[in-house]
Amino acid sequence: MRVPRAGAAGFGQLGEVRLRPFRSFRKRPKKIRDFGKSVFGSRRTTSSSRFPWLLKLSVLIAGLGIVLFTFRSVPLLAQFNSLIPGLPRPAPAIQMLRLLPEERLRNLFTYNGIWLFPKNQCKCEVTKPQGYDFQSAYDQSDLPAVNARRQAEFEHFQRREGLPRPPPLLAQPNLPFGYPVHGVEVMPLHTVPIPGLQFEGPEAPTYEVTLTASLGTLNTLADVPDSVVQGRGQKQLNISTSSRELLNFILQHVTYTSTVYQNHRVDVVSLESKSSVAKFPVTIRYPVIPKLYDPGPERKLRDLVTIATKTFLRPHKLMTLLQSIREYYPDLTVIVADDSKEPLKINDNHVEYYTMPFGKGWFAGRNLAISQVTTKYVLWVDDDFLFNSKTKIEVLVDVLEKTELDVVGGSVLGNVFQFKLLLEQGENGDCLHRRSGFFGPVDGFPSCVVTSGVVNFFLAHTERLQRVGFDPRLQRVAHAEFFIDGLGSLLVGSCPQVIVGHQSRAPAADQELASLEKMYSTYRANTKAQVQFKLALHYFKNHLQCST
Amino acid sequence: MRVPRAGAAGFGQLGEVRLRPFRSFRKRPKKIRDFGKSVFGSRRTTSSSRFPWLLKLSVLIAGLGIVLFTFRSVPLLAQFNSLIPGLPRPAPAIQMLRLLPEERLRNLFTYNGIWLFPKNQCKCEVTKPQGYDFQSAYDQSDLPAVNARRQAEFEHFQRREGLPRPPPLLAQPNLPFGYPVHGVEVMPLHTVPIPGLQFEGPEAPTYEVTLTASLGTLNTLADVPDSVVQGRGQKQLNISTSSRELLNFILQHVTYTSTVYQNHRVDVVSLESKSSVAKFPVTIRYPVIPKLYDPGPERKLRDLVTIATKTFLRPHKLMTLLQSIREYYPDLTVIVADDSKEPLKINDNHVEYYTMPFGKGWFAGRNLAISQVTTKYVLWVDDDFLFNSKTKIEVLVDVLEKTELDVVGGSVLGNVFQFKLLLEQGENGDCLHRRSGFFGPVDGFPSCVVTSGVVNFFLAHTERLQRVGFDPRLQRVAHAEFFIDGLGSLLVGSCPQVIVGHQSRAPAADQELASLEKMYSTYRANTKAQVQFKLALHYFKNHLQCST
Repeated sequence: MRVPRAGAAGFGQLGEVRLRPFRSFRKRPKKIRDFGKSVFGSRRTTSSSRFPWLLKLSVLIAGLGIVLFTFRSVPLLAQFNSLIPGLPRPAPAIQMLRLLPEERLRNLFTYNGIWLFPKNQCKCEVTKPQGYDFQSAYDQSDLPAVNARRQAEFEHFQRREGLPRPPPLLAQPNLPFGYPVHGVEVMPLHTVPIPGLQFEGPEAPTYEVTLTASLGTLNTLADVPDSVVQGRGQKQLNISTSSRELLNFILQHVTYTSTVYQNHRVDVVSLESKSSVAKFPVTIRYPVIPKLYDPGPERKLRDLVTIATKTFLRPHKLMTLLQSIREYYPDLTVIVADDSKEPLKINDNHVEYYTMPFGKGWFAGRNLAISQVTTKYVLWVDDDFLFNSKTKIEVLVDVLEKTELDVVGGSVLGNVFQFKLLLEQGENGDCLHRRSGFFGPVDGFPSCVVTSGVVNFFLAHTERLQRVGFDPRLQRVAHAEFFIDGLGSLLVGSCPQVIVGHQSRAPAADQELASLEKMYSTYRANTKAQVQFKLALHYFKNHLQCST
Repeated sequence: MRVPRAGAAGFGQLGEVRLRPFRSFRKRPKKIRDFGKSVFGSRRTTSSSRFPWLLKLSVLIAGLGIVLFTFRSVPLLAQFNSLIPGLPRPAPAIQMLRLLPEERLRNLFTYNGIWLFPKNQCKCEVTKPQGYDFQSAYDQSDLPAVNARRQAEFEHFQRREGLPRPPPLLAQPNLPFGYPVHGVEVMPLHTVPIPGLQFEGPEAPTYEVTLTASLGTLNTLADVPDSVVQGRGQKQLNISTSSRELLNFILQHVTYTSTVYQNHRVDVVSLESKSSVAKFPVTIRYPVIPKLYDPGPERKLRDLVTIATKTFLRPHKLMTLLQSIREYYPDLTVIVADDSKEPLKINDNHVEYYTMPFGKGWFAGRNLAISQVTTKYVLWVDDDFLFNSKTKIEVLVDVLEKTELDVVGGSVLGNVFQFKLLLEQGENGDCLHRRSGFFGPVDGFPSCVVTSGVVNFFLAHTERLQRVGFDPRLQRVAHAEFFIDGLGSLLVGSCPQVIVGHQSRAPAADQELASLEKMYSTYRANTKAQVQFKLALHYFKNHLQCST
């Protein structure tokens, strides 16, 4: 749901926020999504147009009950204007009401030099080195069909997730009702009491109160005759009594029964008496079922952590890694996923070895490996890493145990590789802004920081990592893709003081191994086709437009 | 957070709901969690104790601002009583206010004959055939240590999920403010405008309004001197002006900036003027990143569906299954996970074959298989199934495409096997009530039903299935465990008209195969140890107490 685009251009006309909107709507639709220009737009005052506008606005507000509203892609003042109570005010006073100078407004909504809200045009400047227009991954001729499929899949996704969420629900002042503004939850197909309902309006010979639900039915636990309460077990409950006390007793015992099986829905229940209407949300949601891991009586590291890796055509690197691991962690379980031609023989009781179809790919292997983990945490390492005395898994465990982080990375040799992902929502897909660095320190761990993505050496909550997963569609070079899939579900930290080494990049002396490495490199290379594929994946799968 | 247990016993004293609570609190704590008995408790009236109680209640309400409240484990009237405004009322009137007879109250909260709310004692009657007290899986002597670990892990889980959720927020009547009761969302570390703020209280020489946040900071876009607005960019914003119009302009342009990096948090922002306080939630949440699949220009079934199976020591069954699949679906990709001793040779370009450590187990294999799927949907089949003309995958695809279901099962021969899972929340773990059958028809598909669990033959949204996963800790017989892990995240349907066959259970004629089958059966058997392990897993991992 969107605010009518009225007044989108108004952001620019600082002194006239109440006057311009519906004019703009009628006369300057083009400016609507074009704040940059409108900032310096003309400043004609148009008091004459005030009353038609107020009329429309009151009709709009009265008609909708709640203001159609969203943060997603509506310029700032359009939102505010639409919320201004529709009361005429003296023109002179209006002139006093100014917003901050544009520069200060911008700064309030600027992150890392990226000015997001209320611009929300999600126009990426793809000129930057990392900048990509994901659409460019497709042939122009295919785009119409691709976009139709993308839109259809996106709508199916939204329907299932209960998106877009209903617009904010705005309470009017001086409502005679007490009611729960937040936090009433019911499991699908279950019944709950609604707390806090009461009426404290003016005295009257009889009180008529009506409750209305849309995704469920209403009832009251009060024992009163049908003449007083009508519509028990239906979507509309009517109460009519001359006793305010009885009315409140009935209200205090109202119940809501969810009649839809869909999860994650919000019903907006209304409570009416005469011209007063209160609306409040009832969230239909199933509780989260925990998936806990028992660390065992001694809380040994091997009962808390599993090491996972993926290898391809370089057994010597893998073996070197395993040896280095054993030097420091003799009994940790190591899970190896291998999509090479020949299966390996590994004599290590604590290594679990899995073979895959040849060349199935990098993320497929990573996803296989983590699918087998049975401990609370999993440590990801590449097959050419090298453990040393600074590779302290315990430190990473301590961070995850004492914070809400889902993933915490270390560093590979000197390489810390922290990056932030900033999401800017747009109508035809979101824009993703990637910047190196971090957001701030981790609570309680000053040497660690919160960020969006880290190196290929990280400890993670197994259950959370499995939930995000490594997309097996990504066959070759892929890394940031995982953290993009994890946006919003993975809280990522980085503790550079925990360091893993890297094996020499010099080619192997041994003939056979050298030829294997050659073959490996031909597969490892990020071909143009691969890059195109990844861009297309962001465009279609993640519903992104571009990245900067 | 819990309501003081006052009045828990009150449910029984129908005519005296206002009088008994704090007496009960003082004198009959034992009854509190024991509604069954208290229903028939004594009926002494105790008007004398009314005023101390009212005093306490008003202090309670005033002091808390919102009523401490939860549906989780507080008997019904305790909740309602705590919400009754603390105003003395004539004793005679009180006598009229009765709740429905107990029988009708029970019925309102009874599902499948299981009476849940407000009993919420989560005492399973484990006498039923399927009934289990999960604690019994542990040695009595180990329990104290186990419970300590279980509690610690549960608390870590809750901290990370932002649980328990704050109690419902109750709006008082006749507040002079307009404000957003629901739907204001901000990404962690981002800034949003707060819509709908306004003051419509009585005229006054100066208006003093204070906004307070706890997980973020406040500001306003209004350009006003510091004498009018104090605390920009801080947790408390103070507005002081003699112009109501300016006050409302400032309020209409208030912004909220999230200062915590944790996701899924709710900040309760308060808006105060004199004695009036409005509170509203600001949800700190990252948008969900879509993971869409491109069905391709022709929307071929092979671009939409992958078949996944797990096999162990019975290659002939697997081969028979594959042949039957190819009869009807020549080019669908089939993913096979095998933890047998010897790897198989399968000559089929559309079969992906994975080998695992010997006997790694049933759910590990299932989890491996689904980790490799790259299509929107995945069809699960056992290795001893047999496709026939009624095995119409297209029908199941149609159901998932047109509904919000995540999983839709068919039937195996005549076996429909639908079961419902009812969750009853409790303090030391939840109770799970399992009943055969379904909840109701699927919207738009009268021949299909909504339920909680189905047979081992189902089509699922790959992304959702991977998110829930098959717990690799479950090595042997396991089935319902998956649907329990999926409670609240999987919406399950069943369409029995889509049927898969089952291969003959007669032992193989061939000597070698027969001996394999023997070996298989020794592994397949659900040993006592295995059963214990599963019960323990429900107790610890899912934080359940028992099942009926």
